[in-house]
Amino acid sequence: MLINGVASDVISSLDRWLHYGDGLFETIAVKNGKLQLWDQHMQRLADGCDRLGLPKIDPELLHDEATRLFSEKNNDPQAILKIIVTRGVGGRGYHSPETPSVTRILLRYPWPSFPDHHWQEGIHVEVCKTRLGSNPVLAGMKHLNRLEQVMASREWCEPEVQEGLMLDLQGNVIEGTRTNLFIIKNDQLITPDLSMCGVEGVMRGEIINNIAKRLGIKVHMRAVNQETLATADELFLCNSIIGIWPVKSFGKTVYSRFYLTRKLMNSLEQQLAHRGIDL
Amino acid sequence: MLINGVASDVISSLDRWLHYGDGLFETIAVKNGKLQLWDQHMQRLADGCDRLGLPKIDPELLHDEATRLFSEKNNDPQAILKIIVTRGVGGRGYHSPETPSVTRILLRYPWPSFPDHHWQEGIHVEVCKTRLGSNPVLAGMKHLNRLEQVMASREWCEPEVQEGLMLDLQGNVIEGTRTNLFIIKNDQLITPDLSMCGVEGVMRGEIINNIAKRLGIKVHMRAVNQETLATADELFLCNSIIGIWPVKSFGKTVYSRFYLTRKLMNSLEQQLAHRGIDL
Repeated sequence: MLINGVASDVISSLDRWLHYGDGLFETIAVKNGKLQLWDQHMQRLADGCDRLGLPKIDPELLHDEATRLFSEKNNDPQAILKIIVTRGVGGRGYHSPETPSVTRILLRYPWPSFPDHHWQEGIHVEVCKTRLGSNPVLAGMKHLNRLEQVMASREWCEPEVQEGLMLDLQGNVIEGTRTNLFIIKNDQLITPDLSMCGVEGVMRGEIINNIAKRLGIKVHMRAVNQETLATADELFLCNSIIGIWPVKSFGKTVYSRFYLTRKLMNSLEQQLAHRGIDL
Repeated sequence: MLINGVASDVISSLDRWLHYGDGLFETIAVKNGKLQLWDQHMQRLADGCDRLGLPKIDPELLHDEATRLFSEKNNDPQAILKIIVTRGVGGRGYHSPETPSVTRILLRYPWPSFPDHHWQEGIHVEVCKTRLGSNPVLAGMKHLNRLEQVMASREWCEPEVQEGLMLDLQGNVIEGTRTNLFIIKNDQLITPDLSMCGVEGVMRGEIINNIAKRLGIKVHMRAVNQETLATADELFLCNSIIGIWPVKSFGKTVYSRFYLTRKLMNSLEQQLAHRGIDL
């Protein structure tokens, strides 16, 4: 781990990160020495800093530090870079320091070992009892207040449930605990509106703004309920690490068609193979 | 600071506290060598652990550590003890470790210097633009996901606004950014219902269950809107550190009567003078 560019494995007890979750994070796939979707992660981070009132972070500085973090280790073909940005050290109390000095933390994690059949045959998902609270002030951001996801993840310990879907208090389906959701109906994509809660995933953005566009597939962002899922042609989940996982079943509903999901998966793989920022 | 009983000023970068705000805290007044409302703080902590699925913490162990933390310092007549309890060190991802080993952190802070007139003449409050999201899974707990309070506190930098009131998305008044709210109308107390959002403050509980009861004042917990505040006879805010602050004005509404608020303040002072756990 690097903290403000210095190797360390501990954090100051006065960092506002700890006391309030006052910051943001990015989880970035590192494949064959390339930081995947780097520009998109840096754009989301900049937008989040803007919304939280944090000073902007120089992406080149973060890139230099990422390079140092990864050059010190064995070069695994795949790894994860987690970047955390916080409002820095402050006194007791919610009031922000007048001139916050941002703390930036870069962590290196090994690549997680998911079974191949999650991509090949798809996964089984269930609905979580834990709901997402709504708040437009925080919606969309990848901030560090993640107790709702922690509580939801505690509900599913059985290995046969690979992801839990979270609803808002009105019963709209918003996202998975660590993934965004897409529905395919009549050869078009539908993904939940995230203006009131949820995380605007970088992979979600990539699918909407690049992959679907290239394939000429229309994307609708709107309210989605469980009925929409039960009557969908196909479903899939995505994030920056897994890419796309088809959903083979949601509760008692079984999906037998993966046609458009496969097409999107193939296009995504091709796109990513040619891109990424060198470490 | 003590971490699991060991003096330190840094935290492991892998603690779930940092990554998700996965834990709880208590802010306790220490006056003349006594931990004020200790049993009530320990009860709220135990309830929170239960709801988050954290192993229970032995209050005697926390008391022993508090004694050590305060004996090492000059004995200021007043200080603050902050206790933080987290789900401990875990891997990447929201899933909880199967057998979480709780991290307990005790921090000592100097007593904050509020001017006397906050108690004597009352404070001015305004409504924050930042709303509180609703979620019964987290409502009431003093957990570590506090970005809403951070964002709300950023709105009021002027010294003439001493506290901001936070509404939920439906427009109900819930609480201050760091205080609970009471309304006095027709010699009865009204305090916002906190079943959907807000923090069930220890001082709020003390006023409801002890102080008001002793004075024979009825307390109603229910939905409160801004009109209820504008037509109130008196208003006051409370927390474990400040005790009770009368409100002299809310927006354009000025309160000229502090009769029952003073009575509650005097009774609270008398009660606390005789209580507390020795350090």
